[in-house]
Amino acid sequence: MKLTEMTREQLADFRQKVLAEYEEFKAMGLKLDMSRGKPSSAQLDLSMPMMDCLSSNDTMKALDGTDCRNYGGLDGIKEAKELFSQMIGVSPDEIFIGGNSSLNIMYDTIAKLLIFGADGTKKPWGKYDEVKFLCPVPGYDRHFAICESFGIKMINVPLKADGPDMDLVEKLVAEDETIKGIWCVPMYSNPDGVTYSDETVRRFANMKTKADDFRIFWDNAYCIHHLTDTPDTLLNILDECKKADNADRVFIFGSTSKVTFSGAGVAMFGASKANIDYFKNLMTIQTIGFDKLNQLRHVKFLKDAAGISSHMEKHKDVIAPKFEAVISALEEEISPLGIADWIKPNGGYFISFNALDGCAKRIVQLCKEAGVVLTPAGATFPYGKDPSDRNIRIAPTFPPVSELQTAVKLFCICVKLASAEKLLANS
Amino acid sequence: MKLTEMTREQLADFRQKVLAEYEEFKAMGLKLDMSRGKPSSAQLDLSMPMMDCLSSNDTMKALDGTDCRNYGGLDGIKEAKELFSQMIGVSPDEIFIGGNSSLNIMYDTIAKLLIFGADGTKKPWGKYDEVKFLCPVPGYDRHFAICESFGIKMINVPLKADGPDMDLVEKLVAEDETIKGIWCVPMYSNPDGVTYSDETVRRFANMKTKADDFRIFWDNAYCIHHLTDTPDTLLNILDECKKADNADRVFIFGSTSKVTFSGAGVAMFGASKANIDYFKNLMTIQTIGFDKLNQLRHVKFLKDAAGISSHMEKHKDVIAPKFEAVISALEEEISPLGIADWIKPNGGYFISFNALDGCAKRIVQLCKEAGVVLTPAGATFPYGKDPSDRNIRIAPTFPPVSELQTAVKLFCICVKLASAEKLLANS
Repeated sequence: MKLTEMTREQLADFRQKVLAEYEEFKAMGLKLDMSRGKPSSAQLDLSMPMMDCLSSNDTMKALDGTDCRNYGGLDGIKEAKELFSQMIGVSPDEIFIGGNSSLNIMYDTIAKLLIFGADGTKKPWGKYDEVKFLCPVPGYDRHFAICESFGIKMINVPLKADGPDMDLVEKLVAEDETIKGIWCVPMYSNPDGVTYSDETVRRFANMKTKADDFRIFWDNAYCIHHLTDTPDTLLNILDECKKADNADRVFIFGSTSKVTFSGAGVAMFGASKANIDYFKNLMTIQTIGFDKLNQLRHVKFLKDAAGISSHMEKHKDVIAPKFEAVISALEEEISPLGIADWIKPNGGYFISFNALDGCAKRIVQLCKEAGVVLTPAGATFPYGKDPSDRNIRIAPTFPPVSELQTAVKLFCICVKLASAEKLLANS
Repeated sequence: MKLTEMTREQLADFRQKVLAEYEEFKAMGLKLDMSRGKPSSAQLDLSMPMMDCLSSNDTMKALDGTDCRNYGGLDGIKEAKELFSQMIGVSPDEIFIGGNSSLNIMYDTIAKLLIFGADGTKKPWGKYDEVKFLCPVPGYDRHFAICESFGIKMINVPLKADGPDMDLVEKLVAEDETIKGIWCVPMYSNPDGVTYSDETVRRFANMKTKADDFRIFWDNAYCIHHLTDTPDTLLNILDECKKADNADRVFIFGSTSKVTFSGAGVAMFGASKANIDYFKNLMTIQTIGFDKLNQLRHVKFLKDAAGISSHMEKHKDVIAPKFEAVISALEEEISPLGIADWIKPNGGYFISFNALDGCAKRIVQLCKEAGVVLTPAGATFPYGKDPSDRNIRIAPTFPPVSELQTAVKLFCICVKLASAEKLLANS
């Protein structure tokens, strides 16, 4: 029976029963974490052979003879550029291999746009009284944190099943010169798991922007992180931008943080040759080069596109059952009650859960008090403010399946409890 | 006989003889590089056992149980903080372990000061019409490049045998609020090889600055890079700053770029607890953490302060003969002619060579035309402008001794030739 169809008495009974279940869980003294999109130990173990790819018996030389131990090679070794350019859909001269963090590259890119401007001829963003970014919501909290830290004003744009609301995006960018960018996780978006449709990608590439230094921050973090055998596909944004004569519009970010090691992977930046040249020129002041040994280690381990694919299959085998565990619990426990909806993603790292309006904070709090840490409610929105207080990002990858099942059971109880409380208060 | 004491005829003969020698070298078609302070392959080989410190048989866990493969640990693993805090003379809670490049940390630090200010309460440097840095000269070209890139005006301060001209430094910082920083390589300075005296360090710690957000950029790149058994010693700047109640005045930078691998080392930032907390708070937006596996690898390899010392002894054994080869050639070929002076350093990576005024560019050009690349003349001064056109930075570490001897022979010939040309033109 749907909760919304219950009488006040039925609701009170329901609440009482669920409260008892909640107290039982609370007494268990759980300590579980579903807060961040972190790989599990089992996933990290998949890349342990990489630790043997370079030993003291190796030459440490790149294919062109570069000694990867020494200084130099600002934009990365050739074989790393070749391998990872395929991964993010650019050509080898349209990529820059960075350190271990694509977030760091995104942050630095915005810092450079603020200080130096988009191409060395345009006004630095920091010289405007106000700079604004469009933020498809729900979205990735660390993107929003970068904007907030730099004082960039964020404007919410609803994320729909085929990508951001492009009618709204097109309208906003056409009329406001201070809207300089948009954050996109175009494939298996964080947290909704949405992949942008071909039409969305084309509209991004072709839309008219008032600002001639508008940039799309295309964080393709999950481009190869499929959860099914019939994965989503994403149109190549750089190709579309070139066709539309807007080649410099898009910055593409990727990494192996969720392919090899989250703390010791390789991050990359893809863009038009002109953009790459511009940023390389600025980067040459910032560093002599990133860790080429780790690049070499990655190439030796992953080998080629087929090597990456088969490696990602192994990840899928580890995490798909975790997503399944969460989804099936939600379907069993929550679906019949009509108090929430969620998206079953084909890839990525999250399940985006929408409770009744005004219930997200309460659910997260209840979980916390019983020992299960979730991403804070509101985190998926700029400034941590979910206007409907309904979205919760569930990150199922880190805990082992057994722990996850316990955590999800508790989560469902908390959803029921918070929903009953809410409906009772409103009734 | 000194060149300056020669008659015009003697000079012309001398020039003719040297020119013939030069043409002989030119015909050899050399391709040698003494341009950058790069370790040689033999030095890099010293750290090859580090490549076996982590293999697939290891747990990848830090001492506190942190899985170094996963996300987290923004400021570094505990054992890396303990090891490297000793190296740069701070306590473990006064250090931040970064990526592979201390230059990158310096650049990012200035970018943050420009955007966010020195401590979150003071005016961001970027909000001033003009920001200035003091630059002891000759100095490190990459420091100057950072300032130039950010539009920070550089003011030359002569570097003397005991450090920068502190009378001038004290005078300048006392009267100008827009002088916000100074670049220091306090031990075995780049390129002069000078180590600052205790008095210099104390004056830095105690001086009155008009700007309350003045910062000393203490790039202690060569703190353990001794070339003799009676190394220089450097007073601890952070201790002195604390005594003077100026604990927040200094930022200390260090790395293992010339200890282990130049391209795949570990860089660090040391400062007061308040400074570390401030920057950590900003960094948490920029990245989730740096490569902890490489930190772990370094700790396993270097072990402790004694391990670092004995490792650096091996470096000394490789490079001291190279410095000796250059110095002895200069003493033999150039000293008797009275046309240049240089400092024999007790450590570091460079020999700073001062030719007759107006000769440095010509010497570098002559070398280049005969196949030996030197650091461009002027590079040791802000904006690449050596007002006397006399300083040349010699970097003897990279080439093998045999090549180095050839290169130095050519260098001496070029010095003689350029000097004779100059004296003839002036006579």
